[in-house]
Amino acid sequence: MELLKQRILRDGSVKPGNVLKVDSFLNHQMDIGLINEIGKEFKRLFSDIPVTKILTIEASGIGIACITAQYFNVPVVFAKKAQSINLDGDMYTTKVESFTHKRVYDVIISRKYLNPDDHVLLIDDFLANGASLLGLIDIVKKSGATLEGAGIVIEKGFQPGGRIIRDMGVRLESLAIIESMSEDSLTFRE
Amino acid sequence: MELLKQRILRDGSVKPGNVLKVDSFLNHQMDIGLINEIGKEFKRLFSDIPVTKILTIEASGIGIACITAQYFNVPVVFAKKAQSINLDGDMYTTKVESFTHKRVYDVIISRKYLNPDDHVLLIDDFLANGASLLGLIDIVKKSGATLEGAGIVIEKGFQPGGRIIRDMGVRLESLAIIESMSEDSLTFRE
Repeated sequence: MELLKQRILRDGSVKPGNVLKVDSFLNHQMDIGLINEIGKEFKRLFSDIPVTKILTIEASGIGIACITAQYFNVPVVFAKKAQSINLDGDMYTTKVESFTHKRVYDVIISRKYLNPDDHVLLIDDFLANGASLLGLIDIVKKSGATLEGAGIVIEKGFQPGGRIIRDMGVRLESLAIIESMSEDSLTFRE
Repeated sequence: MELLKQRILRDGSVKPGNVLKVDSFLNHQMDIGLINEIGKEFKRLFSDIPVTKILTIEASGIGIACITAQYFNVPVVFAKKAQSINLDGDMYTTKVESFTHKRVYDVIISRKYLNPDDHVLLIDDFLANGASLLGLIDIVKKSGATLEGAGIVIEKGFQPGGRIIRDMGVRLESLAIIESMSEDSLTFRE
């Protein structure tokens, strides 16, 4: 997605530890006009599949998923990262290791909001090692729903998540795949 | 907002400990059509004020803020609930006590995304004791930005947050104010 790549080149910055900071437009401050274009692009890429739910994970996936859901006319369900007393007892759970926060946390979704009749599109902002996305895939499997695909805004192509998930046979569409990056340069996969 | 009140009566449920569960349409599964109507209503209520940023707090405020921001044509900034290595060093911080999760956490916003030129509308899903909203108000004050108002989807009118924040002179608009609730009945403030 050319608009997104240009924005990453203009406003993104690379920090030590393979961190790509895009928090001026994607995951702290959010440029809603750009995210609308991202939503349209996901709809274009997945226009041929039936989708009944968009599934994402808190926190930074939620806004992108909600804007995208407008183009599919379906509800969003967001997975939660810890037990909350406001959630009912009957839940799907999985464990996700966060490389960013260096800890393992439980990811949960109420069984009420995902069932075998659902056709699920996963949406998230980043794909690097694949931990979050693999957690969501595990929950979709447990629910018996059909996993139709996964839409990612930025994939770090030099980390293994994308390969692992494509090798599983999941239809994965990333709007920008970073081939390599350093503090001086950033290149996209063609 | 009549559509919202009817939805709360139909799909909400009251659990022990003054918990109103609306997770089938607002804060776990999200009915994007309803949230679009919520966004339009916030625009109608705050149509007379200049807004340059919508500010919310992760996680369940983000989707509502993003959908609402489309009607104001402004960016969303969401406050984060813990230190993240992906945030720059220079941040506004405040402390918020969560009654839901029974702990105190740090709330942070990068200084880059809030400044004295900004006119801020706060958006959140719930207002009960007011802890989250008071934290956001404190951050807006620290930034020197102008606080134009706060839009809340559901206010628990029998808890003190609404009164405290209105007494501060903040323009607070809640789309549904619950006067009282129990497992058998729920009434709204007129």
